[in-house]
Amino acid sequence: MPKTTTIGKYLIHRLEEAGLGHVFGIPGDYVLSFYDLLVASKMKVIGTCTELGAGFAADGYARVNGLGCACVTYSVGGLNTLNAVAGAYAEKSPLIVISGAPGLRERAKAQLLHHKIRDFHTQLQIYEKVTVASAALEDAHTAPRQIDECITECLRQKRPVYIELPRDMVDASCSAPEPMPPITGASAPKPLKEAVAEAAAMIKAAKSAVILAGVEIHRFDLQDHLLDLVHKTGLPIAATLLGKSVISERHPQYVGIYEGAMGKESARLIVEKAEAILILGAFLTDIDLGIYTAQLDEARTIAANSERVTIKHHHFEAVQLADFIKGLTRALTTGKKALKPTRIKRNLELKPFRPQAKKPCTVARFFERMNSYLDESSIVVADIGDSLFGSADLTIHRGTEFLSPAYYTAMGFAVPAAIGAQANRTDLRPIVFVGDGAFQMTGMELSTAVKYGLNPIVFVLNNKGYTTERYIHEGPYNDIHEWAYHLLPQILRKGWGCEVRTEGELEEALVTAKSHTQSFSIINVHLDKMDRSKALERLGKKLSQQAGLSK
Amino acid sequence: MPKTTTIGKYLIHRLEEAGLGHVFGIPGDYVLSFYDLLVASKMKVIGTCTELGAGFAADGYARVNGLGCACVTYSVGGLNTLNAVAGAYAEKSPLIVISGAPGLRERAKAQLLHHKIRDFHTQLQIYEKVTVASAALEDAHTAPRQIDECITECLRQKRPVYIELPRDMVDASCSAPEPMPPITGASAPKPLKEAVAEAAAMIKAAKSAVILAGVEIHRFDLQDHLLDLVHKTGLPIAATLLGKSVISERHPQYVGIYEGAMGKESARLIVEKAEAILILGAFLTDIDLGIYTAQLDEARTIAANSERVTIKHHHFEAVQLADFIKGLTRALTTGKKALKPTRIKRNLELKPFRPQAKKPCTVARFFERMNSYLDESSIVVADIGDSLFGSADLTIHRGTEFLSPAYYTAMGFAVPAAIGAQANRTDLRPIVFVGDGAFQMTGMELSTAVKYGLNPIVFVLNNKGYTTERYIHEGPYNDIHEWAYHLLPQILRKGWGCEVRTEGELEEALVTAKSHTQSFSIINVHLDKMDRSKALERLGKKLSQQAGLSK
Repeated sequence: MPKTTTIGKYLIHRLEEAGLGHVFGIPGDYVLSFYDLLVASKMKVIGTCTELGAGFAADGYARVNGLGCACVTYSVGGLNTLNAVAGAYAEKSPLIVISGAPGLRERAKAQLLHHKIRDFHTQLQIYEKVTVASAALEDAHTAPRQIDECITECLRQKRPVYIELPRDMVDASCSAPEPMPPITGASAPKPLKEAVAEAAAMIKAAKSAVILAGVEIHRFDLQDHLLDLVHKTGLPIAATLLGKSVISERHPQYVGIYEGAMGKESARLIVEKAEAILILGAFLTDIDLGIYTAQLDEARTIAANSERVTIKHHHFEAVQLADFIKGLTRALTTGKKALKPTRIKRNLELKPFRPQAKKPCTVARFFERMNSYLDESSIVVADIGDSLFGSADLTIHRGTEFLSPAYYTAMGFAVPAAIGAQANRTDLRPIVFVGDGAFQMTGMELSTAVKYGLNPIVFVLNNKGYTTERYIHEGPYNDIHEWAYHLLPQILRKGWGCEVRTEGELEEALVTAKSHTQSFSIINVHLDKMDRSKALERLGKKLSQQAGLSK
Repeated sequence: MPKTTTIGKYLIHRLEEAGLGHVFGIPGDYVLSFYDLLVASKMKVIGTCTELGAGFAADGYARVNGLGCACVTYSVGGLNTLNAVAGAYAEKSPLIVISGAPGLRERAKAQLLHHKIRDFHTQLQIYEKVTVASAALEDAHTAPRQIDECITECLRQKRPVYIELPRDMVDASCSAPEPMPPITGASAPKPLKEAVAEAAAMIKAAKSAVILAGVEIHRFDLQDHLLDLVHKTGLPIAATLLGKSVISERHPQYVGIYEGAMGKESARLIVEKAEAILILGAFLTDIDLGIYTAQLDEARTIAANSERVTIKHHHFEAVQLADFIKGLTRALTTGKKALKPTRIKRNLELKPFRPQAKKPCTVARFFERMNSYLDESSIVVADIGDSLFGSADLTIHRGTEFLSPAYYTAMGFAVPAAIGAQANRTDLRPIVFVGDGAFQMTGMELSTAVKYGLNPIVFVLNNKGYTTERYIHEGPYNDIHEWAYHLLPQILRKGWGCEVRTEGELEEALVTAKSHTQSFSIINVHLDKMDRSKALERLGKKLSQQAGLSK
């Protein structure tokens, strides 16, 4: 191993070492020389149409593969990526953003270099607000340590980091990579012991207990620990909307999505009536809590996430979520009143869907139909609006196969995220639900799907505007200009599309889309502009009260 | 006049008072109640497909009308607008960004509200980096003053400001508007007198002198003062690329765009050989300076802009640009060695363009042809790449009719900026030059043109990728997936499109596009992927050296 390398090569090495197979982005002159290193690396560069698309794609990639990366140029690229990075921060998705920057030598010579905003650190300062670590690699001595810190924090906290690389530093000589330090910290033994003992006692003493699992179970790769807990204790388990699919929704102990009054009544009763509620890896957002219709009594709650463990009204710091789950499993299944596995027989047969050929499509019936359209190779990616609310009741077959920005709720996530999700997992076929408003924001990234031979099936839920907002407050601003979404294959010179108005037409489209495997399919599902899922109906009322508009 | 009003109504009043006729944006639940006030106001709300589109449109609007406004929702909207706002900051375009935000009361009740990133002030802190004033209207007592300060700074510095309005403050009671204080400051008399005297003496003593005018002449509405100076002194005048069209390019004293070795030799010689160079309202960027091929001797230079006056190597503060130009005009045309108007006869006949029907289209010939396509009703909007470099040699008929982000160089500016430019000036018809790469970023905003009955003529200079970058450094990342751009009218259900490969086909397309006035026209101009303008050829070499890639 040589003792020195270059900053560019060092960074490439660390990215490869972290298991990154793909990098998303658009080049620009300040980042071109690093792009050459990317092209020469083991990683594949996926060029998107927009940097926002690159950001969402990298986020989708990170949610599936445990780490994602977007590489863009200074300011004009970096700022376009920002919204996706903020979403990854809010929802804990581990994303590395690499940006080119003007060379240090050229900065010394002149001030007004193109793409500059206020000063040369404006973009860095902006990224500090939406990342857990950030660094401008302006000193070859410190660059290796800065890179290592950023990557470590990204993997440890599962949140975005930002690395800025001035173009004349790419080839600067620096020390060669040492072995990376281990990522996860250790729990403090005494708080861990006390927390586990108290939680176990509380659950054992309860006449009924339930687990509510959140998205961190997936982000921190704790599915196996959770399953072990579920199996050994026989406890029923619900999931948050953001955490949907952290456990297979066909698991016999799974009771559904809990989201206060917005979710299904059966799941709500099991969670809210339980004498002990064990919340694992969730950060309970307004949407997860059904816009505060949730009735979770803190006195009956144990909430453990990556940041801390809270029992009733007190907190334990320095307790690792993994250690807590493992310890709790042991404590609950040993000693007095040990819990035991139960054998629940659950009818996994789906209620057969009988299409009524001439009946106009509705959101409710559409998602009912989708339940049997999904299979083991599906990964569902839902955009914001009724695409998300309606799909809350879908049954996802195994873990980690439902992606949605259910907390940050950025429209336009789904199409590019589906591209990111499939890039490294061509065994999966994305099923994308996206509203017409959201599709107009980023849907043209289907161009990227064509370019790289990906084949998502995209359902545009075309209700002629921002229908979620119509239910909060109607106004002319909720109308959008209608596109002939299904004709997109003509523009993109590939793909298959059609429009459907009735359940009969939808059935035909579903068959053709599944058989059209060589490229994307797009199905323009015409819906009444006031049609909505039950969940949206309930949500709309709550949001409207919040907005102070329905006095 | 009532003594109190509400914060929402106060803001609306100030926007109307400032002469704003249109607001661009996309609603969201945190901003819906303010949207209702906008709809009820004298202003027209233009709903775009993306918030980035809204930002560019508002910027284009501001460049034409002297003030622009984008109104978006919290985070998911605000961050998508950021790149356009950064561009407006860099190039001094007066833009007001209004963002909704969670209500103060709901923040007190719960932390994890949708769209939240890190804390409730994350977006505000980000916007502080790209604006000259920003405010969160969280106190009804201070809100009127905060609004007035933001609008004043926007108009005074011609740069963006940010106003954040929590949704429960829209209807909060506040004091009614007082008369706005005057915007412009006064010059300090002594520095003004000294600067004018020194500059006038220097110009009078010089055997030859020239004016180089920049974009601030337009932003600060100083065209009349400049014309007065030009007419009374008879001095020749050049413009920077960013300042292109601040004076009619058919003016007899106009000598062309100066941009170092990148521009035309005739303009370069006049500027660089002059014994006194009077630079007015320019901030000289790397692109304006032909990537530092410019040879401007500071010892012969007088540079006055909105921030200060620099003569040779010393600076004068507190000298208003308008006062300086007016004072200098007086000083130069009176006393000893007074300058006098000259009568220059300039042949304004365009060199007739003779299309060769079978000849494939090239960028150079395309822009030659465009010269006679433009007329008094044209406003040219050029995107980045050869769309900008190639159009540098176009002859713009009167003032302020060439828009391009020639310094910040954000791709994707042109189509939405053209929509913004035409919104309030339907007497103008935008002629848009945009590369295929840039079109893929924001070109779908033609949907907004359809929605509001605007009719830009869009030329997609389709060279199959990022050709400017090919000349800096070629790699597979410069290839993009080709769209059938001319088929867009099918998707958007309106507009007219065609593709052209030869000069004969182009001629036909030009006629049809001009006669298709009811909606947009899009012409897919097929170019060789290595075809480029002379300017790009020269620029590419310089940029490639800067990138350190052609050692």
